Amino acid sequence: MSSADHARFMARAIQLAERGRYTTQPNPRVGCVLVAERESGSEIVAEGWHEKAGSGHAEVNALAALAAQGMSGQGLTAYVTLEPCNHQGRTGPCSQALVDAGIARLVYGMQDPNPKVAGSGLTRLLSAGIEVVGPVMEAQVRALNPGFIKRMELGLPWVRVKLAMSLDGRTAMASGESQWITGTEARADVQRLRAASCAIVTGIDTVLHDDAALTVRAKDLGLAADLAAKAAARQPLRVVLDRRNRMPQSSRLLSAGGEVLLVQNNPQDYAGSAVPVQSWALPMQQSDGLDLKLLLEELVRRECNEVLVEAGSRLAGSFMAAGLVDELIVYMAPTIMGSSARPLLQLPLDQMAEQRKLDIVDIRAVGSDWRITARPAAIAKVS
Amino acid sequence: MSSADHARFMARAIQLAERGRYTTQPNPRVGCVLVAERESGSEIVAEGWHEKAGSGHAEVNALAALAAQGMSGQGLTAYVTLEPCNHQGRTGPCSQALVDAGIARLVYGMQDPNPKVAGSGLTRLLSAGIEVVGPVMEAQVRALNPGFIKRMELGLPWVRVKLAMSLDGRTAMASGESQWITGTEARADVQRLRAASCAIVTGIDTVLHDDAALTVRAKDLGLAADLAAKAAARQPLRVVLDRRNRMPQSSRLLSAGGEVLLVQNNPQDYAGSAVPVQSWALPMQQSDGLDLKLLLEELVRRECNEVLVEAGSRLAGSFMAAGLVDELIVYMAPTIMGSSARPLLQLPLDQMAEQRKLDIVDIRAVGSDWRITARPAAIAKVS
Repeated sequence: MSSADHARFMARAIQLAERGRYTTQPNPRVGCVLVAERESGSEIVAEGWHEKAGSGHAEVNALAALAAQGMSGQGLTAYVTLEPCNHQGRTGPCSQALVDAGIARLVYGMQDPNPKVAGSGLTRLLSAGIEVVGPVMEAQVRALNPGFIKRMELGLPWVRVKLAMSLDGRTAMASGESQWITGTEARADVQRLRAASCAIVTGIDTVLHDDAALTVRAKDLGLAADLAAKAAARQPLRVVLDRRNRMPQSSRLLSAGGEVLLVQNNPQDYAGSAVPVQSWALPMQQSDGLDLKLLLEELVRRECNEVLVEAGSRLAGSFMAAGLVDELIVYMAPTIMGSSARPLLQLPLDQMAEQRKLDIVDIRAVGSDWRITARPAAIAKVS
Repeated sequence: MSSADHARFMARAIQLAERGRYTTQPNPRVGCVLVAERESGSEIVAEGWHEKAGSGHAEVNALAALAAQGMSGQGLTAYVTLEPCNHQGRTGPCSQALVDAGIARLVYGMQDPNPKVAGSGLTRLLSAGIEVVGPVMEAQVRALNPGFIKRMELGLPWVRVKLAMSLDGRTAMASGESQWITGTEARADVQRLRAASCAIVTGIDTVLHDDAALTVRAKDLGLAADLAAKAAARQPLRVVLDRRNRMPQSSRLLSAGGEVLLVQNNPQDYAGSAVPVQSWALPMQQSDGLDLKLLLEELVRRECNEVLVEAGSRLAGSFMAAGLVDELIVYMAPTIMGSSARPLLQLPLDQMAEQRKLDIVDIRAVGSDWRITARPAAIAKVS
C-alpha cells in the first residue's frame, strides 16, 4: 500500500476517534480501521473506536465488527491512531488481540505517549512477525488528545482558558456587570468545551457573582440527541478556588452535575450536598498566591486530561502569569465596552519586552460573535 | 438583455471603477463599459474608468476607447456605476456625450448622491429617447464611494478610525511604549488605507511621540510600481489637532508629503515649512473639548471624502464618543500586553446599556496580525 493509502485510512481512523470527543475521558480518543487488499484496491472491512472508559478499545471494537460479519483478520492491515496498548487493563492488551486475529500489518499514528510504555505494544507485534509502519499523520493524531498526551508526557493537563470579551478586550463593566456579553451560539460552544473537559476550574468570586452551575447540559450542547445525552452523562469535575470557605451550601454548583473539588485553606465538610464534594487544601506559594501548578498536578492524580478555566480576569491572569496556559479561547462580541471596564486578564506588565506573544491558531464566527483560539508562541518572535 | 447580463456588465464596471481607488479624490470612483448585442450574444466593446480629477470621466474615456477602434456608439448599451454627470465641470456633461454618441440604452448603478442633482443626468438621456435601466447592484456600487456619497448626502466625510491593538485590546504600555505592535504587512495595509483617504487626522501627542510623517510612501504600499507611484503622487491632507501650538518646526510631518492643516487655538505661521501649512481655529464646545463635527464639516468644505483617524486612544475615543465614526479598522496583533497597558479607546462607560454595539463586517489575516473591520450597529441589538 502507498503512503497515500496510509494517509487516507489514518484520516478515517482519526474521524472515528473524534466520535469519542466527549466520552472517553480519562482515556484517549482512539480510532481503528481494518483494511483488506483486494484485486480492485484496498478497502475498509471493519471500523472501531473507543467510546468510554471500561468499554472496548478501538482495536477490540473493530475486530468485533469484523467477527460480526463472519470475517477473519488474516492478512489484513490495521490502522490505529495510537500504538495498541500492551497491558492487561480494563480490557485485554490490544497488541495481543491484533496478533491473535492474524493481521499482517499495523500502521500506527503515534507511539504511546507514556515514556515508560512507548514502543512495547509495537514490539509485541514485531516479535509476532507483523509488519509495523508509523508514525503516520502524527501531528493530526496528536491533536486528538492534547490533554492525555500532555498528562502522560509531562505530568500536567492541557489547560484552556475560556474568556468572553468585547472588541476592546473588556470582560465586564467596572461594577462587575457582565452577563450575556456573547450570544447563544457562543454559549453552546462553551458547553461543548466543557463537555470535552475533565475538569472546570473557577474562582469563588465567579461562583458568588454568577451562581453558575458549570454543568454540561444536554439540551444546550447543540449536538445530536444521543451524543448530547452521552456527553452530559459524563460531567466534568468542578474545581472551585475557595481559600476562605465562602462557598454557600445553597450554591447551584452543589445542587446538580458531577463531583466538586473545593480548594480551601481549612477544608470544610459539605456532606449534606446533592453532589459529591471534596475539600482539599492547596499549599500556598511564598508570595501568598496559590500554587496553581500544584493544583494541576493534583488534577493529574485525578486523571484529568483537559482542564477548562472559566473564571474572572484575576484567576485567568494568574494562570497566564504562571505560564500554565496552553490555549486561550476568547469569544469576542461585536461591541465596545469602554476604557473603564474590566480587563481581559488581570496581568500587569510594564514593558513591551514582557508581552506574551501568541500564535493565533483559529479565528471563526460563532453566531454574531467571533472565537479566537491562541497559544503561547513556541519561540518569542523578534519584533 | 437579461438581468444576469446587467449584473455581469455592472460587475465589470465596478472592477474598472476600483482602479481609481487611490487617485480619483475628490471625485468618485466610476467605471463604464459599452456593450454591443451581437448574434453570438452581448459583448463588451469598450471600457473606461475615471483616473483622477481633471482627466476624463469614465464614460468619456470609454467613448474615446470606442472611437480609437473606429467604432460608433450607435445602438450600444452603456453600463455606468454612477449616473452620468449633467453639468459642465472640468470635463463636459457625460449625459450629453452619451446622447451624442448615439447609445440606445443606459444601465446605471446608482443615482447621483447629491440630492440637488440626482436624476437630472438620467432625465437628459430619457428626453433624448434613450432607454434607462437602474439602479443595478446598487449596494455594491455604493461601496465604491462611501466617502463621496456621505459627503454629498449628509455633508460629512466617511470616517475610519484605524487602531493597532494586542489581543487583549491594548494599544501601548502605560509608559507610552508602543512602536511596532503589528507587523510589516499590517503597516503596508495602513499605507493603502492612507492612500485611499483624502485626509489623515491625528493629535499633536501622536506627532510629538512618534514623529510620524503620515505620508503615503510608494515603496511601502505593496502595489504594482506604476499604481504605487500614482497613489503616492496624490498625498492626503494631514490634519493635526494642536490647540496649544506645540507642533515643532522640525517635525517630519512638515518636511515632506502633502498639505498640512493645523488646528490651533491661536493660529500660528508656518510659512518656512517645506510643505504648505495652514493653521485654522476650530471653535470649542461648551464642554471644553474640540467640536469634532465642525472639523469634519471643514474637511467637507475642502472636498474630503474619506478621512482616516490615526491617533491615540484619547482622540480616537473622542470621535467614538461623539458618534462620528463610520468604521473601526483594528489591527490585532497576536500578543497579550496586560491589564496596565493603555486601552483601545479612551471611552469610559459605566453600564452595559451604554456599550457601543458593532457589526463586524470583515475579519482577515494580514501577515501575522488580524484586521477587524467593524461599523456601529445600525439598530441596537437586544441582548
